[in-house]
Amino acid sequence: MKILLVGATGTIGREVQRRLSNEHDVTTVGHKDGDYQVDLDNKASIQRLFDEAGHVDAVISTAGMAAFGPLTELRDEQFELGWHNKLMGQINLLRVGQRFINDGGVVLLTSGMLANEPIPGSVSVSAVNGALNSFVKAASIELGDKVRINAVSPIFVKETMEMMGMDSSAGMSAADTAIAYQAALDGDMTGEVIDVRDYA
Amino acid sequence: MKILLVGATGTIGREVQRRLSNEHDVTTVGHKDGDYQVDLDNKASIQRLFDEAGHVDAVISTAGMAAFGPLTELRDEQFELGWHNKLMGQINLLRVGQRFINDGGVVLLTSGMLANEPIPGSVSVSAVNGALNSFVKAASIELGDKVRINAVSPIFVKETMEMMGMDSSAGMSAADTAIAYQAALDGDMTGEVIDVRDYA
Repeated sequence: MKILLVGATGTIGREVQRRLSNEHDVTTVGHKDGDYQVDLDNKASIQRLFDEAGHVDAVISTAGMAAFGPLTELRDEQFELGWHNKLMGQINLLRVGQRFINDGGVVLLTSGMLANEPIPGSVSVSAVNGALNSFVKAASIELGDKVRINAVSPIFVKETMEMMGMDSSAGMSAADTAIAYQAALDGDMTGEVIDVRDYA
Repeated sequence: MKILLVGATGTIGREVQRRLSNEHDVTTVGHKDGDYQVDLDNKASIQRLFDEAGHVDAVISTAGMAAFGPLTELRDEQFELGWHNKLMGQINLLRVGQRFINDGGVVLLTSGMLANEPIPGSVSVSAVNGALNSFVKAASIELGDKVRINAVSPIFVKETMEMMGMDSSAGMSAADTAIAYQAALDGDMTGEVIDVRDYA
């Protein structure tokens, strides 16, 4: 399959690339690096990406930013980051990408466990992830057999936790997290939220 | 209790007002009518509302707009309406309202069944509702005992369906829908998504 991997230079993305590139033709997309660059905040940038990359069989996104912070301290622009980057940016990968995705193709977006298992400071991230989980379910009934769409829902990634000086014992390695992306690519599910803990 | 009812002039809001006004002091807020007016899209308008209305024991929102339309036809500004009006507008009722809500107070926001039971054309509304459901869960762990927050999740309202020329047999009347708002006001739950079907 020809796969466009958006977020390929990130912690999870690198492991998804490693896992898939033996069997598939993976085109990497990053914010600054990769075969192509994209700014998820910017729909025109997403349009340019597909114009340049052309038709694909799958779009996998491990990208998208949203801000952590307490309810009383999060600023308007921090909420906006989540709505426009991780949420609308990933939705736009489908909206813009639709006519570039071959029939029988797959779209995998990334949400996260904080949708249903919040922690203090996750209000914005939780809302974004919850929106993505409901979005893929709704989109799947319109896409039907043409394109499968699922949300992969990671837990905290060990490497990220270590980088932030957190205890990483409850986290999952990026390599183990990548297993769920492969399962969602190879499977036949659509409109599902794929919990990485079910696959690692 | 002194209750600020935002959306009081809407189909559900009118019935919530009717149901609560015997026992409570209900201040009505509408887009154009009511004791006060507010534009949910506009945080300054929400700030003015609380400056004028003062301290309250509960904020109940039955307000918020989001657009229906197929994934392939929804325009950017229709997605934006959902993020900024029904989603961020209701989140801002809590963010701005927090210091006006007395200890032990309650915030009830409105999401909807389309978060988990989408229909064709509901991609944006489903995403907004899913975000709200995850938001209240995350916000509740930061608010603790100070303020309870829940999302009431209505199904389609019979009166609205009839107005739109739809078969309303699967809908719920606005009066029956209002029962769940009262239950959520009187109960002790927080961080919950309250399915109106469990109360009617």
